[in-house]
Amino acid sequence: MARNTQVKADHNAPPVTALLAHLAAAHPSRGWSDAVDHEAHRTFLNWLGCAIGAAHHEAGSAAVKAAQVLQSAPQASVLGRSEKLDMCSAALVNGISSHTFDFDDTHLKTIIHPAGPVASALLAVAEHTGASGRQLIDALVLGIDVACRVGNMMYPDHYDRGWHITGSTGTLGAAAACARMLGLSEQATQMALGIAASQPIGMREQFGTMTKPFHPGASARAGLMSALLAQQGFTASQRAIEAPRGMAQTISTKNDWSEITSELGQRFEISFNSYKPFACGIVIHPSIDGCVQLRNLHGLKPADIAKVELKVHSLVLELTGKKTPRDGLEAKFSVYHSCAAGLMFGQAGEDEYADTIVQRADVIALRDKVTATVDNSIDEASVDVTITLNNGTVHHLFVEHAIGSINKPLTDAMLEAKFHSLVDPVLGAERANALIAACWGLGAAANVSALAKLSQP
Amino acid sequence: MARNTQVKADHNAPPVTALLAHLAAAHPSRGWSDAVDHEAHRTFLNWLGCAIGAAHHEAGSAAVKAAQVLQSAPQASVLGRSEKLDMCSAALVNGISSHTFDFDDTHLKTIIHPAGPVASALLAVAEHTGASGRQLIDALVLGIDVACRVGNMMYPDHYDRGWHITGSTGTLGAAAACARMLGLSEQATQMALGIAASQPIGMREQFGTMTKPFHPGASARAGLMSALLAQQGFTASQRAIEAPRGMAQTISTKNDWSEITSELGQRFEISFNSYKPFACGIVIHPSIDGCVQLRNLHGLKPADIAKVELKVHSLVLELTGKKTPRDGLEAKFSVYHSCAAGLMFGQAGEDEYADTIVQRADVIALRDKVTATVDNSIDEASVDVTITLNNGTVHHLFVEHAIGSINKPLTDAMLEAKFHSLVDPVLGAERANALIAACWGLGAAANVSALAKLSQP
Repeated sequence: MARNTQVKADHNAPPVTALLAHLAAAHPSRGWSDAVDHEAHRTFLNWLGCAIGAAHHEAGSAAVKAAQVLQSAPQASVLGRSEKLDMCSAALVNGISSHTFDFDDTHLKTIIHPAGPVASALLAVAEHTGASGRQLIDALVLGIDVACRVGNMMYPDHYDRGWHITGSTGTLGAAAACARMLGLSEQATQMALGIAASQPIGMREQFGTMTKPFHPGASARAGLMSALLAQQGFTASQRAIEAPRGMAQTISTKNDWSEITSELGQRFEISFNSYKPFACGIVIHPSIDGCVQLRNLHGLKPADIAKVELKVHSLVLELTGKKTPRDGLEAKFSVYHSCAAGLMFGQAGEDEYADTIVQRADVIALRDKVTATVDNSIDEASVDVTITLNNGTVHHLFVEHAIGSINKPLTDAMLEAKFHSLVDPVLGAERANALIAACWGLGAAANVSALAKLSQP
Repeated sequence: MARNTQVKADHNAPPVTALLAHLAAAHPSRGWSDAVDHEAHRTFLNWLGCAIGAAHHEAGSAAVKAAQVLQSAPQASVLGRSEKLDMCSAALVNGISSHTFDFDDTHLKTIIHPAGPVASALLAVAEHTGASGRQLIDALVLGIDVACRVGNMMYPDHYDRGWHITGSTGTLGAAAACARMLGLSEQATQMALGIAASQPIGMREQFGTMTKPFHPGASARAGLMSALLAQQGFTASQRAIEAPRGMAQTISTKNDWSEITSELGQRFEISFNSYKPFACGIVIHPSIDGCVQLRNLHGLKPADIAKVELKVHSLVLELTGKKTPRDGLEAKFSVYHSCAAGLMFGQAGEDEYADTIVQRADVIALRDKVTATVDNSIDEASVDVTITLNNGTVHHLFVEHAIGSINKPLTDAMLEAKFHSLVDPVLGAERANALIAACWGLGAAANVSALAKLSQP
């Protein structure tokens, strides 16, 4: 036990568990700008499309079957499918599906995907308890604020050492959000956060397996269960997040408490949420964007292209340098395929990462014309693209910020188009339009039952 | 990402996820000595008594109510109560109850309480699926081996930095055990371990709240769910435990892989399991034992005692130095009350930590006669006790190893007496006797349904 003193301990942390509980329980409904409220609707729309789009993927299907082994009660809808499950199991499955395509929202400062844990838990609770759309939007803003502020406090150390930060902070976000929606007192909300603090979920080693999307699903489930336990009087430490042997100091050596306390209740982290236009890692988005822009600007045809030269940040090759991807999953880690898809189809959605597309001869031929070199003057957010045609014409573009970044966000119309690309194949375009309307009107909806009903076949 | 290189990474770890999966899936039934098999029965008996004893505590009650909000299906028994819940929820609640009194088994090398996560998950699965008692005992030995070997690999660093090691390793133990009982292939077992590796549960800051016993319950639930997902084809990293960004390296800077690989399948960690004779932290057991021995040896009466002087290891005062405990929970952290209880009642079970006992004038008077001083020559396992009577007589005893330690284990008869002290108040002595017989005969039982039925009122 004397060895305990060798582990650093900050005994002077501010009471962030209590402060976050106060935020979640006591912040006024819609106590933020219209821009924040609109961003919450955009976050929800994007999350819903991702979850419905991947509804029939084998990860979500396996989770539904496991819940059925438990004879789960039909309380809440599984998005894009016909089953209903108990609230916790629905949160799990919808959380898994929403992250399966790696196409969900990103809080860029921490690379947290906050909607997966928070919205997945909330919609299940709202559907079963008859909560209003306003309650859901309020809880979404506050829950995402909790998850992302805790993330800001620990990032990057926490992520670097191996945690998948979406799942490790998501449990707290989901717990705060569900406590808000269930109308728990400030004290009970603090207990919900405390119970959740013992359940950080997710290791980066799982990337590339179904357990990666399991992380937001499992944290949605765990956060909701924490709130349900607190509702029944279950207790936890009042300083479960910040105490020397609490969550934050146990799972991170960086603990910048001011990231939680600064402008709490005034600045909302959902303002910094972003939405991917392309179904792959953020790091190759500038390259794809540059190719798509040049294609559209000059009406480029694949057959006319002689070579595509990229100057990129070192991370691009480190993370996505696969030259000859064999299937869709590998292609997501190939800047070469991704640029070929952008040039050939004008987009790089989930469809453009289908195995059949990745293996098509004309796509492979175009992919082989792409080269990428590291240029230390190029920022992570940028790319320099030069396309030379067979006739000798040279087109050049420098992309400072890619479409979908905070500096160049997807427009609402682009988000709707993305939603269609995900939802139309599952539920059809007409239903997708109805869902889009339901999402934009969510804050004014008396309850979420219409939206939940529309989200099933 | 360049910062990642600052975090240490061991790329040469042996494939322990695969090795543990092989152990769990392929080790022969009863492939160990009779002594190991008997220890498994002792572990199960002790766990069952603890879980039934605390069945009506507010922690278990709150968890039952939360599961009922989810309209949980009646698949498995809640021990000591009339409810049945789905397998995962029963695992959660029974795991909580089994640790509520802090009276369950202890793997002393790591201070893991291994039965809570493993047995709680197993009994629920065995009851619902109709598994045999032999299957349960086999899976218990193997699951506890997985949890404790992973604990050995990370202890003490992992514990020192704040993890409640029972919950963080318990998920793996429960997953391995449930995979065994469900008959999963070696490959699927490896996936179950992989899914579980993303869910270490529990921070030490929670000690003293209901979230402490929540940890073994939650890891029982999470381990079982990991096995159920793997059964449906869910995937995870094949190196989820040992990879550089896998569980072990993310949550511990000590990773002694030989603790997992050494004598795997030959030495079984359940051999080193111990059972508490006193319902409090291990560290004050030598002091209580010394007082009880002197009391019984000399027929000491409280009124005759002038003073009780203890020479103790520094940890005793660090962890259990409360001089004036106000209630039962505080009294568990008071060497003074604990020794007074031992002297007055000859035991220190859950009853001797009741609020009414702690607040009784004669108990307080005796407690105030106890002094404890740190002696650096005294080992953590030992105590030096001197009792002076009003008539001047002095009795002295040095206890090298307390009753209940590996060196001086509880006999089977003592375990039965402990079981009665826990179970009689809940189900009656006759039922307790029937349950004791069912536990001793478990390895030969065609199924566990009789035992499960006996465990409910």
